Amino acid sequence: MKASLDPYFDAFLDPDALAIRYAELAPSLHRTPVLRSASLDAWAGAALHLKCENFQRSGAFKMRGVSNALRELASHGLPAGGVCTHSSGNHGQALAWASGGLGIPCTVVMPSNAPQFKKDAVRAAGGRIVECRPTLAARIEAVAEVVRATGAVEIHPSNQAPVILGQGSAAWELLEDCAARGIALDWVGVPVGGGGLLAGTGFAVARWNQRHGTRVRVFAGEPSGADDAARSLASGQIEHNDNPQTVCDGMRTELGDVNFPVIRETVTAIYPVDDSEILVAQRLIADRVKIIVETNCAPPVAAVAKHLSVFSGQQVGVVLSGGNLDLSAHAWGPAN
Amino acid sequence: MKASLDPYFDAFLDPDALAIRYAELAPSLHRTPVLRSASLDAWAGAALHLKCENFQRSGAFKMRGVSNALRELASHGLPAGGVCTHSSGNHGQALAWASGGLGIPCTVVMPSNAPQFKKDAVRAAGGRIVECRPTLAARIEAVAEVVRATGAVEIHPSNQAPVILGQGSAAWELLEDCAARGIALDWVGVPVGGGGLLAGTGFAVARWNQRHGTRVRVFAGEPSGADDAARSLASGQIEHNDNPQTVCDGMRTELGDVNFPVIRETVTAIYPVDDSEILVAQRLIADRVKIIVETNCAPPVAAVAKHLSVFSGQQVGVVLSGGNLDLSAHAWGPAN
Repeated sequence: MKASLDPYFDAFLDPDALAIRYAELAPSLHRTPVLRSASLDAWAGAALHLKCENFQRSGAFKMRGVSNALRELASHGLPAGGVCTHSSGNHGQALAWASGGLGIPCTVVMPSNAPQFKKDAVRAAGGRIVECRPTLAARIEAVAEVVRATGAVEIHPSNQAPVILGQGSAAWELLEDCAARGIALDWVGVPVGGGGLLAGTGFAVARWNQRHGTRVRVFAGEPSGADDAARSLASGQIEHNDNPQTVCDGMRTELGDVNFPVIRETVTAIYPVDDSEILVAQRLIADRVKIIVETNCAPPVAAVAKHLSVFSGQQVGVVLSGGNLDLSAHAWGPAN
Repeated sequence: MKASLDPYFDAFLDPDALAIRYAELAPSLHRTPVLRSASLDAWAGAALHLKCENFQRSGAFKMRGVSNALRELASHGLPAGGVCTHSSGNHGQALAWASGGLGIPCTVVMPSNAPQFKKDAVRAAGGRIVECRPTLAARIEAVAEVVRATGAVEIHPSNQAPVILGQGSAAWELLEDCAARGIALDWVGVPVGGGGLLAGTGFAVARWNQRHGTRVRVFAGEPSGADDAARSLASGQIEHNDNPQTVCDGMRTELGDVNFPVIRETVTAIYPVDDSEILVAQRLIADRVKIIVETNCAPPVAAVAKHLSVFSGQQVGVVLSGGNLDLSAHAWGPAN
């Protein structure tokens, strides 16, 4: 790893140190199962091993990064002012759940137009909501105000090193569980939005390869209507989304300066996929695997089916990122 | 066990013999995970351990009974005429999948008004469909005709001893996996329609208790609009449904003379639950556990929440029977 990475990562460049940290986080997390489906494999043309983070506490992998970030905070004494964030989605829910468990307050800044079911979920988890205008600038200002007023510590959803490191534990468990079944994965795939899961996965898989002498590669699927990560990997610098358009509500964000250097160093490919392909994959996962996954989960699965020349016949692990779907409002995509 | 049971069961009254048989079936089956949800537990007032047979091959526990029945057939030489059945639902799909894997033909008699997606599923599994008028008499006659014409062997969905015994393997695995996590279940619950799963579960749990010196009890949830099993258990003889009305399409059937004696001897209670309660439970399982379950799965979960005086604070295993839902047509029940 290069010196440009956040120095936090230095303590975990030794794979054993990372394994120990992930074991320490385990009591805060569900060990989510890895599911298989013969008919999904037949459709995709590859052997898919689905790490079901939709079953994770709070309904998404976000609990992993939050757990590690709170662990780091706790090692310096938990802040009486608690924690705050401006993610309105799964990260906000996870932070509210986890901080409630530690007995510290959690404030989630949410845009006034956030869906009611997301507000309900944050409140059900014990979070306090501060509403703001639906712009990024308003969100950032609102978080700064919460920090000033309460002394809360901000936990960013995707661009803080402890959060990134925690997210990688899903891929680590996936690799462990596949190895226990005698399966050597060729690839691990994840969706990419803000980049925390992708960077954490890249970091973890690199450590796994180092430890086991393997050459597992990492890829991401990304909505083509918000393809900043694919363009960033190609250009070598952080690119932006002018007007992101995609059914993946969690993926209209951009990479950050902490996660991008890790992604650049550890990720083999980022594949853009169209919304229509994403919806077909989401519906197929529901139909064949019988699980409820968010639209955000589907890009890496869609990417596998789209790029047979890369993935055909390969052993492909995929982290299904979350399952927080508003069932009252959801219409399943087309059957395939 | 009393002498009135089918003599097939005699070979498995020794728990070790049953454990060996279940281990023999394992390669034909998925070892489905046992999932937990803190928020579902909070709603139900009990600790629920959900055995996800919706992830089973062919999408339902039916693959278990079919696998054991085909194993028995194979021990006498597989019939060249293959197998047949008149279940239009999950049993038909499972039989088509499993017999296809063995290279023998499978004929499924389906009423002409069966939903298209069920016909598609049987055909996708390699089954041949024979349509008949939508009456029980017409189904029975059509199966008899297939047997005469082809020499196929009928595999009944719920009233043949090898089918019943196979279904019990889900509860056995559930007990094993809970024990491995240090959890001693108080109850195992299943839905009851034709009675195969309930009798198999009762038989298996009785063997488990015998082997481990435990006192795990078995219960069922049943739609109150088709409550023949609850009435049968109360009266001590097989009762009938005059005009079954329930959203549970797989539970409009009745108990049989092979499974009822086992149920009478091994089952503690059968709880009727209303369709409205069933729909709330189905929706909650989807919302909180993030899995797709058929309506047929929900009665035992609804029964736990309904009978706090029985289940409050107990460790309750539930076999979620299947996940073959037509997503194009499904509207989720009310949120809770």
